[in-house]
Amino acid sequence: MTDILREGERLDDLQRDGLMLIQRPDWFCFGIDAVLLSAFAEVRENDECIDLCTGNGVIPILMQARTEGKFFKGLEIQEDVADLAKRSVAYNHLEDRVDITCGDVKNAVQIYGARCADVITCNPPYLSEEGGLINPTDQKAIARHEVYCSLEDVIETASKLIRPGKRFYLVHRPFRLAEIIEKMHKYRLEPKRMRLVCPNANSEPNLVYICGIYDGKPGMTVERPLIVYDEKGEYTEEVRVMYEG
Amino acid sequence: MTDILREGERLDDLQRDGLMLIQRPDWFCFGIDAVLLSAFAEVRENDECIDLCTGNGVIPILMQARTEGKFFKGLEIQEDVADLAKRSVAYNHLEDRVDITCGDVKNAVQIYGARCADVITCNPPYLSEEGGLINPTDQKAIARHEVYCSLEDVIETASKLIRPGKRFYLVHRPFRLAEIIEKMHKYRLEPKRMRLVCPNANSEPNLVYICGIYDGKPGMTVERPLIVYDEKGEYTEEVRVMYEG
Repeated sequence: MTDILREGERLDDLQRDGLMLIQRPDWFCFGIDAVLLSAFAEVRENDECIDLCTGNGVIPILMQARTEGKFFKGLEIQEDVADLAKRSVAYNHLEDRVDITCGDVKNAVQIYGARCADVITCNPPYLSEEGGLINPTDQKAIARHEVYCSLEDVIETASKLIRPGKRFYLVHRPFRLAEIIEKMHKYRLEPKRMRLVCPNANSEPNLVYICGIYDGKPGMTVERPLIVYDEKGEYTEEVRVMYEG
Repeated sequence: MTDILREGERLDDLQRDGLMLIQRPDWFCFGIDAVLLSAFAEVRENDECIDLCTGNGVIPILMQARTEGKFFKGLEIQEDVADLAKRSVAYNHLEDRVDITCGDVKNAVQIYGARCADVITCNPPYLSEEGGLINPTDQKAIARHEVYCSLEDVIETASKLIRPGKRFYLVHRPFRLAEIIEKMHKYRLEPKRMRLVCPNANSEPNLVYICGIYDGKPGMTVERPLIVYDEKGEYTEEVRVMYEG
């Protein structure tokens, strides 16, 4: 363990196929939003998948376990965070299906090539940049705020990477929904599926999942809301299945 | 009664303040979507309100009872339907606060003037026009299909009638949500509030309510979904209050 973990890091059990994930709690730890994104995204056999803003790589690592996709590439701009993700891939011996690259979302087409992916996923920073107040060496702040890439950067990039008729999956906060839909339409990623996630049956949604299809026809399915916790404060059956399934 | 009702018409009790509504079941009868729109729309004292595609006038008639708005104008393109709505206004002695005009949404600015309304409501036809297959004398089809005005016509017109900072309220089907948000953004009616309505706790939403503010800032509140029926098949408490409140 000592040669794989650096100072401040820990090894967390992903509760699936014996997979472990290196995390640094003072940087960022994955949450339910990433797990639900890996369940929401539909990956078919041999699909070529790219995860933008991959962070510690939890989404490609979970998705290679859940699906028959051909490979899962993850792009992360912060060198130390990308290094951590690469070590998780190595620890789990996933080098043949998961590949982490350190790079900027805005350069993704130079890195991967245009129209190269069947599935693009992204769990981006949720908050606006707020006028340069964020310390650019603060990994936690960068994971949360649009310091290095905006929502529009992510959507524009996805629209260039994706193959016609293929699928882009985004998780975000509902307060950005209008902007998400407007930008997806602008970049020809027509919204086709959407699901709100509410912590409890009586609470406001705090996450939204949306799927866009490149050059898809107008008209979307808004699925019934997903409730995370039941009255006892435990995961609902549906969420349990998503963690396990 | 005989001088107010025409052949095929009936007088329905709105269950509020003794209000009655003339309806023709073979044309169109109002549904829960109209009642919930009158509850979702926020009308302040002395607000000047316009309802586009008003049909039998149920929305202005309900809203004058629910709120302290100054007046409620309703625009309806079909002469015979507008005539029916006018007779409902007369029957309830509401001529001082409710005014029905027969006219085309696309001419609404000539009829009412630009930037004249604090609140615009609309419960438009939900379905696309489908290539001219609709009989233009079929009142029921016209209430359901975009024969005389498209979603974009409604939103563009609302954006011209509304005063800066004021509110547009639309009810529609969720499958049109992406188009609704994109067009609202295009015409500067920034989406600020949204609520999905699900028939039951476990069903997909079948209605969406959305409020846009002219020249509003980006960022919206997505409210918790409204459930219409409880496990016994009766209205939930929240819906009951909307019918009564």
